Amino acid sequence: MIDVTLIGTGGMMPLPGRFLTSLYVRTNGRAVLIDCGEGTQTAIRTASLRFKCIDAILLTHFHADHVSGLPGLFLTIGNEGRTEPIHLYGPTGLTRVISAFLTIIGELPYDLIFHELPHEGARFEAANLSVTAVSAEHGMPCFFYHLALSRPGKFDPARARQNGVPLSLWGQLQKGEAVGGFAPSDVLGPARRGLSLLYATDTRPVDKILQYGKDADLFILEGMFGEAEKQARAIETNHMTMQEAAKLALNANAKELWLTHYSPATPHPEEFEEPIKSIFENTVISIDGQSKTLTFEE
Amino acid sequence: MIDVTLIGTGGMMPLPGRFLTSLYVRTNGRAVLIDCGEGTQTAIRTASLRFKCIDAILLTHFHADHVSGLPGLFLTIGNEGRTEPIHLYGPTGLTRVISAFLTIIGELPYDLIFHELPHEGARFEAANLSVTAVSAEHGMPCFFYHLALSRPGKFDPARARQNGVPLSLWGQLQKGEAVGGFAPSDVLGPARRGLSLLYATDTRPVDKILQYGKDADLFILEGMFGEAEKQARAIETNHMTMQEAAKLALNANAKELWLTHYSPATPHPEEFEEPIKSIFENTVISIDGQSKTLTFEE
Repeated sequence: MIDVTLIGTGGMMPLPGRFLTSLYVRTNGRAVLIDCGEGTQTAIRTASLRFKCIDAILLTHFHADHVSGLPGLFLTIGNEGRTEPIHLYGPTGLTRVISAFLTIIGELPYDLIFHELPHEGARFEAANLSVTAVSAEHGMPCFFYHLALSRPGKFDPARARQNGVPLSLWGQLQKGEAVGGFAPSDVLGPARRGLSLLYATDTRPVDKILQYGKDADLFILEGMFGEAEKQARAIETNHMTMQEAAKLALNANAKELWLTHYSPATPHPEEFEEPIKSIFENTVISIDGQSKTLTFEE
Repeated sequence: MIDVTLIGTGGMMPLPGRFLTSLYVRTNGRAVLIDCGEGTQTAIRTASLRFKCIDAILLTHFHADHVSGLPGLFLTIGNEGRTEPIHLYGPTGLTRVISAFLTIIGELPYDLIFHELPHEGARFEAANLSVTAVSAEHGMPCFFYHLALSRPGKFDPARARQNGVPLSLWGQLQKGEAVGGFAPSDVLGPARRGLSLLYATDTRPVDKILQYGKDADLFILEGMFGEAEKQARAIETNHMTMQEAAKLALNANAKELWLTHYSPATPHPEEFEEPIKSIFENTVISIDGQSKTLTFEE
């Protein structure tokens, strides 16, 4: 299962009662954070989540509202006693931006490992998840992220016997460990449907979102603007409207859509709930702390 | 008069319900901000104060909890439409630190003017106030600040007549403008007691605080620790205890003391109110948004 918490839902600037957009994703006790604007450490505390288990931070891009909480977060994670390295992923420029921040924070008790991703994106493992970074359209290097948790096949005793696997090895093989010349596949049935979510803020609604997010359990997309008359502004500023987000969720056959990254000029995004749900019924106009546990199908 | 608002009272890291320590001081519609940690822009909004009238930002030092809110604040002030320059004051390193931040914020619609103050401190005018930066003791370059508003003498018609000032010039001279070969002093009595406040966080209780803060209307001092057993820790980390702050206020004959910059390990600083008040009665265990208008004596 995957615990997903959208700890903030704001775009551009933090507001009283609305933290900047950031996602905290936890699987088997390890966590990934996507973006970290000013105040994100307070958002993590407010959502009663832990700092020390954050193994990786994925950055969509380097606008201040997505990264300027990093210096404080780094220090707070250090104060919590972490010594294992943290992996940072983001577009070209990552090292330069983070190094600039490091000038005000001095020595940390853990290492930061920088992964500058190529423009065409990349696939990597982070905190038990398989992550794909795909380049978005925001007028500057920017990624959206697809996070997936695979699910091995069911344990199949008949298959184990058929393959001559000694009973004493069944337990280890079932947990996914190769042992005694046998592979887990020798005791497991075919892989089952896993879980996936797609996170895209600060981008126009590009087709790649449909492609990578097909049948996803959860879409988390920006809904910077809700008003029909803001469509031109969305195009001009390389953002997405709520309507465009809902159409993406519909066309990708997503199970659920959470909107986020609201303009500071939109204090009440819930006003747009009805028209947006008429496009994609299973839409949530997220609030800070929106959370859900994605679980494997029975 | 001077409007003083302590918009945050935290030290080290922002907490839900406690912004990082920062002071907003307004005189005649212009404002000075002292320090700007992560979340200060939200603290300004929460206190219902304005961004656009901030003419100067004084930085005590460059630990992250005192400066990392600057990138977001700069952007927000730009969004509010400011075009006049903002003056930044702080220790050596100011230009380097702010320039690092500028890598994530791009072009602003106003200029930032850097004033790196010499180690021995400096005196300058900012937003109608006379400011003195004095070097503190924090194990790194750090200043405390004394802010003063002078008060001219009372208008004295007898003196104006005696000095042969034409009646038509009285108004201008009374406002403090030299005109027609006359100086304001030609129509005013002796200067009267002005207003002053002293702001010192992140320092040991150095004697210079007594010297510069003598008879101040308001002391705003850090009270990082309240427990007697934390005295050694305060010395080790170059901070001040609440007891030390209260003794400074007493010995400087300050009118009032506000404590701030509480350790994150002190969720209830008000627990120390009684013992601290037994040292200096007029102590306020400040909370975020603590505010007061300092007015001239009648």
